[in-house]
Formats: sequence, structure tokens, C-alpha cells
Amino acid sequence: MAENLLSRMRQEAKEIFKASVRRVDPYEAVKNFVRLEKEVLSVGPANRDGIELNLERFERILVVGGGKATAPMAKALEDVLGSRVERGLINVKYGFSEPLSRIEVQEAGHPLPDDKGVAATKKILSLLDGAKEKDLVFSLISGGGSALLPSPAGGITLAEKQAVTKSLLDCGASIDEMNTIRKHISSSKGGQMARVAFPATTINLMLSDVVGDRMDVIASGPFVPDSGTFKDAWEIMRKYDLSVPEPVSAYVKMGLDGKAPETPKDSDPLFHKVHNFIIGSNILALKAAGNAAEAMGYTCLILSSMVEGETREVARVHTSVAKEILQTGLPLAPPACIISGGETTVTIRGKGFGGRNQEFCLAASIELAGTAERIVVLSGGTDGNDGPTPAAGAIVDSRTAARGSTLGLQALEFLKNNDSYHFFEKTGDLLITGPTKTNVMDVRLVLVR
Amino acid sequence: MAENLLSRMRQEAKEIFKASVRRVDPYEAVKNFVRLEKEVLSVGPANRDGIELNLERFERILVVGGGKATAPMAKALEDVLGSRVERGLINVKYGFSEPLSRIEVQEAGHPLPDDKGVAATKKILSLLDGAKEKDLVFSLISGGGSALLPSPAGGITLAEKQAVTKSLLDCGASIDEMNTIRKHISSSKGGQMARVAFPATTINLMLSDVVGDRMDVIASGPFVPDSGTFKDAWEIMRKYDLSVPEPVSAYVKMGLDGKAPETPKDSDPLFHKVHNFIIGSNILALKAAGNAAEAMGYTCLILSSMVEGETREVARVHTSVAKEILQTGLPLAPPACIISGGETTVTIRGKGFGGRNQEFCLAASIELAGTAERIVVLSGGTDGNDGPTPAAGAIVDSRTAARGSTLGLQALEFLKNNDSYHFFEKTGDLLITGPTKTNVMDVRLVLVR
Repeated sequence: MAENLLSRMRQEAKEIFKASVRRVDPYEAVKNFVRLEKEVLSVGPANRDGIELNLERFERILVVGGGKATAPMAKALEDVLGSRVERGLINVKYGFSEPLSRIEVQEAGHPLPDDKGVAATKKILSLLDGAKEKDLVFSLISGGGSALLPSPAGGITLAEKQAVTKSLLDCGASIDEMNTIRKHISSSKGGQMARVAFPATTINLMLSDVVGDRMDVIASGPFVPDSGTFKDAWEIMRKYDLSVPEPVSAYVKMGLDGKAPETPKDSDPLFHKVHNFIIGSNILALKAAGNAAEAMGYTCLILSSMVEGETREVARVHTSVAKEILQTGLPLAPPACIISGGETTVTIRGKGFGGRNQEFCLAASIELAGTAERIVVLSGGTDGNDGPTPAAGAIVDSRTAARGSTLGLQALEFLKNNDSYHFFEKTGDLLITGPTKTNVMDVRLVLVR
Repeated sequence: MAENLLSRMRQEAKEIFKASVRRVDPYEAVKNFVRLEKEVLSVGPANRDGIELNLERFERILVVGGGKATAPMAKALEDVLGSRVERGLINVKYGFSEPLSRIEVQEAGHPLPDDKGVAATKKILSLLDGAKEKDLVFSLISGGGSALLPSPAGGITLAEKQAVTKSLLDCGASIDEMNTIRKHISSSKGGQMARVAFPATTINLMLSDVVGDRMDVIASGPFVPDSGTFKDAWEIMRKYDLSVPEPVSAYVKMGLDGKAPETPKDSDPLFHKVHNFIIGSNILALKAAGNAAEAMGYTCLILSSMVEGETREVARVHTSVAKEILQTGLPLAPPACIISGGETTVTIRGKGFGGRNQEFCLAASIELAGTAERIVVLSGGTDGNDGPTPAAGAIVDSRTAARGSTLGLQALEFLKNNDSYHFFEKTGDLLITGPTKTNVMDVRLVLVR
């Protein structure tokens, strides 16, 4: 009986996860966001907060972009706009291209940028530079876009740029500090592509893979106003006594002296021509999960799309909510579904094989051992890839740890060794989806019936 | 303006915390739970789930108990029952006694039990042993009750009992395993006091200081059925190849051979004479916090009373919810109050001075830095004591980390050094209540306006 209930709940969890990933499918997201009726282009979520453009105003439509998910995004744009697309170029990771009719696809290095990426970004900048007042530019941006649109400024080489990134990581600089420096040794990041595209009208469609969905952070915001300055960059370099290659400090000094262009700020009128939209994000995936779970009779609570922290500890907070639901019906009475997203971290202490989603589930399974058999926990990467493993994550329940014990596997030992994959491979609790072509970080589900 | 809002919210947080502690005040909790009208005694939460007893049925009322909070609990009982109390004896921690009229108070060792405790527990057992069918026994139990009611079985000494506890801690035994062994080398824990009190009627009133409020865990459940056996105890000792003093293994072997009494089980008819009640607990404190916050206009969400885990990581999950509330109005639209309880842990890595509640707030203040000035976080120990510090916890907001910087204090450095007290002492963010005489673990509040 309990076995039946758990297996039904595990199936439900899988379906809810699928629904959340479907919501952020890059092709579907563009298709739903960009609609053409006669010559009127509507851009925005169905029926609200969008813009309308009469295509008769424009002579050409150009498409640029970069990121792992931009090939299906570009395909959707071609399907909507057809031959109205004049030409375009997008950069994707090796192996992530798809056949397109009018938009060129360039494969390049990710997560480490390479010369292919530099060359293609140069071509993108030149395409944008040629855009006129009567042109409409579509930009397609997704996770990985920063590495796939490399454009070191001045005479800086890729290797020198990477040396800076390494120094910043080593000195413990914050993400914001790193971004400030990176944007000020690049000729495309921090809104600089928007400046190059001016005076054309630009529509920038972003699939967000960053916690909090800050547009200036997604792919380092090539079309988004920057708030940092060369002065900030210089001060960060001084604060950490950063050792950087000579061309890097030379370029930042040029910026200080007004001899290199500052990133455009929010007040710059050029942004009147830019329309930035997030078309897919973690919170949208979570909301879709909530809708799917409600259709199955669950009451839902979306905790946060911004969950960060050490994975196993975050898992314990989630199971503590599940236990409270069972014991007192708070914060929700069962059947209840707690949903969270974001991206946690794993401090590697062992030598095992796994990913943060599987580790989350392994830690959860330990906490669930011995509780009533009415709880199921799923954690999955929306890209279908959890760490270096072939799984997207795992699905566990109150019996998982015991199932492991029966097989001679102690969950706690596998957790200590960061070896979640090998535990779940044997217990049969892996969540396997294959690559989904999208990435809006992770989705976690806690079902209680 | 924002300053005003934050200072108002900090005041609100303090008042909500106070309301939650008031709900679990030991004196008030007993007073509200035990009501006498004419000769009819009602025991239970006002108007539901309680029992009624006609005092004319009973010849004597006896009172026993142990725990840090039992003096005010006994005072309340005296105030309700007056001269109907025949006599009694309760054990409290040194410094925790209060003048009582009819019930004797014995101070004893806590957290390490001592000979005073052993002697007084012997007296309690003898008092219970003399209880007759027509006697009514009140038992008062609160946090610390296990150490304050020591009663090693057979010829086992206190030192030998402590050696077992140490071995269990060292070998990594679970809490349940530790309890099974402890109950089987004691002559009072695991329901054994109930057996001694039989055939009297017993009302056992508990103030819970354990995560999940399991009655058999609170003070090792002297009046609560036990599920473990001597066989379980023996197997746990074998599983960990536990080295224990000879009298300990001798006693457990006697139990295996039926020569020492097994702890009474749920099916034992003696429990028909026992009425166990939790009169104060973390979840009750959280609900009171919720009521107080709602009266101030906040929508409330009680996450869980069972939160455990590494404090700083738990804090990040809480702030991630606050940020989501600000950004999307999920899981609640502001003004919103997220409430959680339980007891987290701190892995000491530095040499500073602090407690888990202050560390929670310090970690939260780092995450809140730079967010809109509409978030306040409070974490406090309901006993008024956070770790070894004179504070109960702290209250922080979006400006706390910056206030520290201005004073030359970097929050992150203080967190790394587990030095929350010295940070908040300077920034003025300590929550100081003084001892509250109660303990139902911690209460955490996240206010967002």
C-alpha cells in the first residue's frame, strides 16, 4: 500500500519536473514570447507587459547571440519570422549547433573561451556595427553566453583575460567585483553590444541561468546598462593587490584617462532603443512545476528560486519542512508540494562521483529514513546534467536509505565520499532525462501526501 | 525613511519573539493547561483534547519531576491546587530553584549529572513507589530532565554511565541508538517511572526541548512507553564493538536473561493510568509568533519547527526566501513573516565567541547586504541564552553588514572566526532578554515589508 503510494508519488514528481523543464524549453520560450500577426510583431508574455512593433517600419531583421541554448532559440525565431530574417550569427558550445536556414551558427569553446569564439564575436560586432536606424536586431542570450561571446578589449589576449579571472578567484573577490573587472577589459560585455548596435532597435531575449535573474549578470549583459566604472575596476584591483598582465592594467588605466570607452550607463539614451526581456528563468520553471503539481491535487509552496548554500545542509532544511507537514500540517496540509530552485554548492571532501542534485537527494534520503512513507524528494538540473554524471538528479523517498542498506550500501558513507551517483545507480533512484537543451539551474520538489 | 522602516521592523521582530517566548513560559503553560473548577480538574489545552478528573476520587496528590524549568511549573501547580498537593519533590539545575510551599526542590548537576541528582531521584522513585491506586501523581518534565533524574540501574555508577555515553558519541551512534542504551542501564528512564507509580493515576506534563517533540525522547521519557529492548541495546553495543565498563555489560546481559526488568512497552496496561501531555514546545512558540505577527499585519508562514543543520547554510536558505518575497511576492506577498524553529548546529572553525542564533544572524546579514532595506532577520534562543554569551541571539537587517564595515568590522571575517558576539556587540544588533526560565529551542523570524 505504502509502496504503491510512494511509487505513484515518484511518478508524479517526475511529471512535475518534466513540466517545469518544458516551460523553459528555449524553442518554446521564444515561440511563445515572439508572435507575428500580419505585420505586427508582439514581444512579451502572452497578453501582458510586452511591446508591439510594426515590421513595415524596418528594412532588415538581424539576429545575433551567444549561449548554449541559442540554436533552438534561433530556430524558433526563424520559424516565426521566416524570410524576414535578413541574416545573423550566433555562437554556441561545441556540439550544440542545429541546422538553421538564415542564421549562421558558430561553435566555440565553453566554459573556456577560445579563438573561434573571439573570431565569431568580432563578426557579430561588425554585423551590429553595420546596423542602421531602420534595422531591427534580435539578440539571443543564454547560459554560457559570457564565455561564448569573448571579446578582450585593446590588445589583451584570451590567455591574459583568463589570468585575470584566475587571480580574481584566488583572491576571493565577489561575483560583482569579478564582473566589474571583466566588463572593463571587454569590448562587448556590460552593454557595449547595445552601443555598437545603436541606432538600430534591439530586442534582447534572455534565458536566465543566474540566481536572482539580474539582467546585467546574464552572460555579462552585452545589451544591458552597466553600473560599474573603470574607477571601480581599478579600485578592486588595488583592494586585492591583484597581479594582472601588463596589457590589462594598461587598458584599465586608459579607461581611467578617458582613452578607452566606459561601459554605457542606465541613463544613456541609446538604451531607449533596447528592449530587454527574460523569456525563461528558474522562477518560471518553478511556477510551471507548481501548476503541474496543483493539477495533481497538491497544494504548492514555492519557497525560493534563489536557494544557494552547501547542498547537504539545504537538503536538511527541505526535509524539516516535509516532517512538519506530516506532523502538524504546517506550512501546508498534505497533499503538499514544496518547490525550490537556484543552485547550491558542494564542498568536495570525498573522492566519489556525483552532482549537487544527487547529493541533495542522498542527504534528504538519510533524513527521511524512518519517517512515514508519504514523502518523495526530487532534485534535478534543468539542463539534464548533474555534475559530470549522465543523470539529471535523483528521486528519493522514505525507503531509499533502507533500500541501500539491503544492498549493503550505507547512505551516510556515500554522502561522506560525495559518491551519490554510485549509490543511486544501485538503488535505482537516478533521474535521467538526457540533455534538455535548456538551463535555468535546478528544480527541487518535496511531495508529501 | 528606510531607516525608520527598518527600526520599526526591528521593534516588531522583538515583540513577536517576546510573544513566542511568553507562550511557552513554564508557569503560564501549566496554569493554562491545568484548571480546577469546584472539584473537577481539567487538564488539556483550553476546551479540547483534554481529560477531566474528579478530585474527590483521589486521596492524595503527589508531584515529582525534573528539568531546568520545573520550579515555575511546580509553582503554577501549587497555585492551582493549593493545599490539595500532599507533597512532592522536583530536581532542578543549580541556581534554578524557586521557593515553593508544599513541593520540595532539589538542586543537582546539569548537564553532567551528580550524586545530588542520584540521591534525589532515589527519593522520587520511593515516593512514586508508595503511591496507591487512589493517588494522583503529577509529573513535571522539561529540558535537562534526563541529566537531572539520573538513576543508574544495578550496581552501575554515574561515572560508568558517563563512560558509556562518551563511547557512544565517539563511535558515531545515532540519537535513537544512544537512547536505547541509556534507557536500558537506567531504572527510571524509558517509562520505568510510570511502572513505579502504578497503580496511581499519573499526569505527566512536558515542556519539549527536542526536535520533533517525541515524548519518549523528552528527558528520556520516564513516563512514556519505550520501543527498544535489551536485545536492541546488546546489538547496538556489538554493532559498534562498544567498549563499556563491566557492570554495564553485566546489567544488559541480565536483562537479556530476563533477570533485569525490561522497559514497559506501549501495550502494557499500566499506561492506561498515565496521561502524557506536551504543554509547551517549539511549534507552539512558532504559532504564537505567527499570531503576533499577523496582528501587526504580516502574512505568516511557519516553515518548520524541526530545522536542523549547519547554521550559516540554514541562514542562507532563509534569506533566499526573503529575497524571493521581495522580487516576486512568493511564497508570500509582503508584508510577510517567515517563521522557523528547531535547533541548528555550528561547526567551530574559529576562535571567536558566539552562539548559533548570533551566527545565524551574522550569516544572514552578509546575504542581506545590498538588498532593499525592507528585510529584518531575528534569531533567538527561547531560554534567553545563546551559547555561552549573555545574549539570546541577534536582530539584523539589510544595513547591518555595512554598519559593521563603517566600524572597521568585516562581517565575513567575524563569521569565519565564529565571532558573532563580538561583531554584534559593536554594531548594536544583540538581542538581550535575560534568562526566560523556559527552553523550547530557537525561534527565527524573517520579516519583509
